[in-house]
Amino acid sequence: DPGLVVGGHQLKSRLIVGTGRYDSMPQMRDSLMASGSDCVTVAVRREKLYDRMGQNILDFLDLDRYILLPNTAGCYTAKDAIRAAKLGREILRSLDNAGSDWVKLEVLGDSKTLLPDPSQTLAACEELTKEGFKVLCYTSDCPVTAQRLKAVGAASVMPAGSPIGSGQGLLNPNNLRIILEYLKEDDPDYPVIIDAGVGTASDVSEAFELGADGVLLNTAIAHARDPIRMARAMKHASLAGRDAYLSGRIPKRLYGTASSPEEGVISTRPYGSAPLSGK
Amino acid sequence: DPGLVVGGHQLKSRLIVGTGRYDSMPQMRDSLMASGSDCVTVAVRREKLYDRMGQNILDFLDLDRYILLPNTAGCYTAKDAIRAAKLGREILRSLDNAGSDWVKLEVLGDSKTLLPDPSQTLAACEELTKEGFKVLCYTSDCPVTAQRLKAVGAASVMPAGSPIGSGQGLLNPNNLRIILEYLKEDDPDYPVIIDAGVGTASDVSEAFELGADGVLLNTAIAHARDPIRMARAMKHASLAGRDAYLSGRIPKRLYGTASSPEEGVISTRPYGSAPLSGK
Amino acid sequence: DPGLVVGGHQLKSRLIVGTGRYDSMPQMRDSLMASGSDCVTVAVRREKLYDRMGQNILDFLDLDRYILLPNTAGCYTAKDAIRAAKLGREILRSLDNAGSDWVKLEVLGDSKTLLPDPSQTLAACEELTKEGFKVLCYTSDCPVTAQRLKAVGAASVMPAGSPIGSGQGLLNPNNLRIILEYLKEDDPDYPVIIDAGVGTASDVSEAFELGADGVLLNTAIAHARDPIRMARAMKHASLAGRDAYLSGRIPKRLYGTASSPEEGVISTRPYGSAPLSGK
Amino acid sequence: DPGLVVGGHQLKSRLIVGTGRYDSMPQMRDSLMASGSDCVTVAVRREKLYDRMGQNILDFLDLDRYILLPNTAGCYTAKDAIRAAKLGREILRSLDNAGSDWVKLEVLGDSKTLLPDPSQTLAACEELTKEGFKVLCYTSDCPVTAQRLKAVGAASVMPAGSPIGSGQGLLNPNNLRIILEYLKEDDPDYPVIIDAGVGTASDVSEAFELGADGVLLNTAIAHARDPIRMARAMKHASLAGRDAYLSGRIPKRLYGTASSPEEGVISTRPYGSAPLSGK
Repeated sequence: DPGLVVGGHQLKSRLIVGTGRYDSMPQMRDSLMASGSDCVTVAVRREKLYDRMGQNILDFLDLDRYILLPNTAGCYTAKDAIRAAKLGREILRSLDNAGSDWVKLEVLGDSKTLLPDPSQTLAACEELTKEGFKVLCYTSDCPVTAQRLKAVGAASVMPAGSPIGSGQGLLNPNNLRIILEYLKEDDPDYPVIIDAGVGTASDVSEAFELGADGVLLNTAIAHARDPIRMARAMKHASLAGRDAYLSGRIPKRLYGTASSPEEGVISTRPYGSAPLSGK
Repeated sequence: DPGLVVGGHQLKSRLIVGTGRYDSMPQMRDSLMASGSDCVTVAVRREKLYDRMGQNILDFLDLDRYILLPNTAGCYTAKDAIRAAKLGREILRSLDNAGSDWVKLEVLGDSKTLLPDPSQTLAACEELTKEGFKVLCYTSDCPVTAQRLKAVGAASVMPAGSPIGSGQGLLNPNNLRIILEYLKEDDPDYPVIIDAGVGTASDVSEAFELGADGVLLNTAIAHARDPIRMARAMKHASLAGRDAYLSGRIPKRLYGTASSPEEGVISTRPYGSAPLSGK
Repeated sequence: DPGLVVGGHQLKSRLIVGTGRYDSMPQMRDSLMASGSDCVTVAVRREKLYDRMGQNILDFLDLDRYILLPNTAGCYTAKDAIRAAKLGREILRSLDNAGSDWVKLEVLGDSKTLLPDPSQTLAACEELTKEGFKVLCYTSDCPVTAQRLKAVGAASVMPAGSPIGSGQGLLNPNNLRIILEYLKEDDPDYPVIIDAGVGTASDVSEAFELGADGVLLNTAIAHARDPIRMARAMKHASLAGRDAYLSGRIPKRLYGTASSPEEGVISTRPYGSAPLSGK
Repeated sequence: DPGLVVGGHQLKSRLIVGTGRYDSMPQMRDSLMASGSDCVTVAVRREKLYDRMGQNILDFLDLDRYILLPNTAGCYTAKDAIRAAKLGREILRSLDNAGSDWVKLEVLGDSKTLLPDPSQTLAACEELTKEGFKVLCYTSDCPVTAQRLKAVGAASVMPAGSPIGSGQGLLNPNNLRIILEYLKEDDPDYPVIIDAGVGTASDVSEAFELGADGVLLNTAIAHARDPIRMARAMKHASLAGRDAYLSGRIPKRLYGTASSPEEGVISTRPYGSAPLSGK
């Protein structure tokens, strides 16, 4: 598997991980490492911020290892999100980080569910694309909105599996299938990334088994009882899910057909020189 | 993770894999290798058997690498299953394989679904245990039968996720949870292995996330379009699921609570010598 | 719909309702009435019993309206269940109630889940059938056990949707489908009744939509906040589910095919004498 | 249950039924009758239309019995939908039908899934509300869009359970719960109607059990093998679901608590004058 190509970047891992909600910077750093990801998303804000310990997040991110994906978390209008995106670009340019040309666009519609606002997201996506950004666009699982976002130039559409932080996994695989069918029709390499809602490892595998190209997650790792171990679980789950998708799974049936009774059998009955045999 | 301890054996991998239904012996050999398993289950029969090519299954199983787990697949009565178990013991003794002291007991009730017969299974399990076998016992997801099997001495209870070869995954997690609760009450190390029904990688992860100690599977790998890749997927899925279980996943909620707006943020506002900072 | 024929009895309603767990006898009486059922199941015991108010359950059951179905709830061995069945027969004979020739057999395997014991149930079913009882037999959703019970003469097999009182509904429709397929093969009128686990009205409809002939429930009504209204809901749900099953539902699809744009339309364009028209 | 109050109208039935996709006008007429609905939705178009037999839909709708709900099916822009709404108003005024003041707004985003376009729907809803319409607004299950539609004055928000005609039922109850929580907060009588996706009777019951005020459906009846019987099923399912919701269902549990062994029991042990007794 050559990995995930999105927004002009080639990522070895198909997991993108967030940096929020960790108990400490060292825990974050070790969890990111355990996840195997080479792309880390960070929120952009205008105010300077230390953590409780006076520590700077950038001191804990090895910028030789990770490409940064600035995101506009916490923005509720297209205008705010566009401003945040531009600020992120400036910052990453000053860091010489390759992530200065892209942005994960989040325009929220609601502070409780953190679900996206469809109209404001669409407007911001169009504008940012015009201004040269590669826009990875967080959205609901609505197939119509997903098509609109691709049409205005989104570099990737990122449907939510369920509300951010809910841990509900993929609540509507039917919609995700439709999105994948639509966005990849005549364009099989167009990247679709499931963003939000992951609760545990099997949710990640399921996303890939549906045909998603990537998964972005944060809370499921950061708020697990053991974040570093959960990060490792997520790494394996992404490898498992992608391979399972590419392997062509067996169909589901009410019941299986009986296997041949003669397969994979050992026996004492001699034949030729061998005392035991298989089919 | 120290791996799976069952029937007196210590296995590094928590996956047990079958040997049936492959297109060819080399494909089987390579798939078993890719699965990372160190325990392979083989059916025991009285008739000598070559495959279509005149090949012997044992020529394709590296017995230094794998412990064999003889199984009684294809038996429909306690009597037949007991006879098969004893035959398997003889064969494995002649091979000096460590698996001669255990058996995976299958007593089928129905040739279409390959679901187990509860009464005959219970009778055979009791008898084989008395005769010194470590019995790993295939059963339905019925919590009452699971308790009965443990009570007569089963070394492991192996509930089916769904009918053999159906690819339906875990159809009744509620019953599996009850089985795990019952069999591990005051005996947390008692091994419960999900056997049958796995269709794809996320099914394996889910089994471990429920708290299962191991997963046994065959058709999901052997009948995938690309068995070797699917075997690798299953290896990662078992690692993912077990780690996720041990990590303590986040709870499911209708919607998540908003993260602090100040976590994981980068900013241009200078402070001290750093031009950018995170919380 | 001619109703449910089971054990030689013709019931107008396809719901069978229990009498336990109500706050009061009058509440029970009114709930039974609201359910529309004409068959009520009652537990048989050797000890005399008044309720808290010194009231006798039989004073609250209109025996001209309801056929009684004695059940062996609370029995954990075949022997106990057989004794209870015989006692119930005596009692119902003394009441001249038509239900003296049948019994709902319950042999529990576990006092926490109240799930059935497969072996003891099978033994009791066989014995009671030999003694001339029409046996309606509570069992798990295991297709093998269901077949065994029919084979020894059960007048009806009654698989549990989920554990008694759990309100989980039908946890494994796949197994229920297999049971229906098996027991009705070449015998389409053989009655299969879903017993246990119902939580709300849609669970009842689902049971009928799968093809069940009847549903038996108790706790979902008796422990609802408003039992009488819930009983009415269950009546409608049984009518809805049975009719839906017989109607031949539309298939499930990823998305629907667009309806003709010209169907069911009104318009201002005049044609002939009509100012408005539909296709 | 006083029925459904929406857009200033009081409906006895909580089902709203469509008129499309029937094999014949008489079949439609009889199905509508069997559904028990008193509100029928009809598409509005500019072209005159007869059916294959030259029949006018209005000749088959008893306008004394049904209030008509004109809908804008087949419109893909706000502009078209507004025009259709106004045309419907004219037509219904000419018929003196009470439905001339309301409209079911559908602005589709995609001709394959028939899912709604969020932006165009919002724009049309706002405009039509300003022009005095009571707007019942078809939308996806997105909680943010649902809130926006209520905010611009929708008389009812009508989230889709799944794509029109898919028969998938309610694919994302989590989103529907959030919509109900949000739209009914401090406004418990605000009507939320599930529109689209119903496949069978239990889907209707589930919608009401979640707390929906009404259900609109068409294909599930019109394309059933026996539409008239399915219409009757839907009538009962709506009564069942609404009553179940109001009854306060029992909670779901891993397993139920054992009922008292002494409830609902009959016995031979005499006490006082009664030969048999219950608790």
